[in-house]
Amino acid sequence: MPKSPAVPSKVSLNGAILDASEATVPVFDRGFLFGDGIYEVIARINGRFFYEELHWDRLKDCLRKIDIALDVESLRAEVPALLEASGLEERDCLLYIQVTRGVAPRQHSFPKGISPTVLMYAWAKTLPRIPEAPAHTLTREDFRWSRCDIKTTSLLGNVMANETAMQNDCYETLFVRNGVITEASHCNVFFVVGDTVYTYPADRYILNGITRLVVLELCEQLGITVIEQGIPAAEIPQTHEAFLTGTSTQITAIDRIDAHRYGAAPGPVTRRLQEAFARRKEGTS
Amino acid sequence: MPKSPAVPSKVSLNGAILDASEATVPVFDRGFLFGDGIYEVIARINGRFFYEELHWDRLKDCLRKIDIALDVESLRAEVPALLEASGLEERDCLLYIQVTRGVAPRQHSFPKGISPTVLMYAWAKTLPRIPEAPAHTLTREDFRWSRCDIKTTSLLGNVMANETAMQNDCYETLFVRNGVITEASHCNVFFVVGDTVYTYPADRYILNGITRLVVLELCEQLGITVIEQGIPAAEIPQTHEAFLTGTSTQITAIDRIDAHRYGAAPGPVTRRLQEAFARRKEGTS
Repeated sequence: MPKSPAVPSKVSLNGAILDASEATVPVFDRGFLFGDGIYEVIARINGRFFYEELHWDRLKDCLRKIDIALDVESLRAEVPALLEASGLEERDCLLYIQVTRGVAPRQHSFPKGISPTVLMYAWAKTLPRIPEAPAHTLTREDFRWSRCDIKTTSLLGNVMANETAMQNDCYETLFVRNGVITEASHCNVFFVVGDTVYTYPADRYILNGITRLVVLELCEQLGITVIEQGIPAAEIPQTHEAFLTGTSTQITAIDRIDAHRYGAAPGPVTRRLQEAFARRKEGTS
Repeated sequence: MPKSPAVPSKVSLNGAILDASEATVPVFDRGFLFGDGIYEVIARINGRFFYEELHWDRLKDCLRKIDIALDVESLRAEVPALLEASGLEERDCLLYIQVTRGVAPRQHSFPKGISPTVLMYAWAKTLPRIPEAPAHTLTREDFRWSRCDIKTTSLLGNVMANETAMQNDCYETLFVRNGVITEASHCNVFFVVGDTVYTYPADRYILNGITRLVVLELCEQLGITVIEQGIPAAEIPQTHEAFLTGTSTQITAIDRIDAHRYGAAPGPVTRRLQEAFARRKEGTS
């Protein structure tokens, strides 16, 4: 599965629209010194942001969890001008939003009286109706913090795990915590056993992905039983299908986890969910 | 214990000396997007950097751990010009060094062919011969990652823990992992039981502080037995003394951990170490 990094032409930085190549932040921004910020990625498909409210709600939730006060509604109001400046009004794209605590002399605790730094940019991206190429994956012990429910920019652990995947010709690293698969470096993970779908529950060890929530919704609609429970890494060979979910990953079948290979990827349940997800994007279900 | 954030006049950014208020990095710096970097702080005392080699060695070690290639020796060569530009040639100061992976379109895995971003700055700081005010502390479950041996800028966990300390009128949060005190949000932690000094071993759950290493050296010199083993949080009331170590914290006695108060802070062993540390700074032992 090819990766295409985001190369936007414009960014919105604290409300000002700038050439992407000229946008800078002070070295004393706490995003740069401490990874003290959060982010969000939203897909625009057929002229509308997909599950937009859930993304903005999660952004607000993450800001609250790390005590950054920001008027998110006024931020939303800046998106159309950014899309226009970026020449993306009529195109499918991805929108990246990052909020850091702001600029202050370096000290660990939260400074008083500073304003958050807000970066947004969008880049043209047409997501496939269904991602056809299945993903190779590997497993690694989860060495990240235990507040994975916060979509923070302090991402070195995720970055290292994703690099491990790339080094091993894989798309993703699946994390194992307490013997159980939780999530991946930038995706959620699902398994299918018989007719039942399993995924790790939305506690502090995973980021509760919006696509994850859509899949849970689709399972209910399709009458597929879901158990929010992690699959032990040792039991992977007993599972019948596996797939990843994420805003740009959508629903991508997994064909390999370490040495275990799935016979068909996508399997039948994954395929049903991919089709239902495609219809949801098209607004036909 | 008052905190004084660093307010430098000049910074060195990729070798160029700039006014601190004008130094910026691209928003696509991976330090800003991912916390993908490491840092170091070195104290200059009486005209020399204290245990300078150990700090540069640790910087190299951390760069190696996260696969950033950098000629650290040429970086060192830039320090005198920074001190001169900052008007600090004749003054005690602290030097901050941060290296990030560099600037690239956003994708988790390591981009090829980019150059690291290097930020350095120094600010006047005269450390007390011995920190006299003892520190109030509290304990919290360690929710950070399990690669605390990497001095990363992905610091949100440390930042949140330090904020918890401030909110509770404390100087530090001591982390408890698997029931045992490991370290604090930006310091190492030592305990004294009878005549014996205890501190958590330098595994992946702590940053092996340079001041921690100096204290181990001083214990050996003074004939004080050290056991590198963590103290269970439940056994804090049975300890006789406790202290924090760090580059700017030096050796600071702890007078309180949660509800437990130490009768004397510093106790006699802490005081001996503080005196020996002061002599080491003065170059008289």
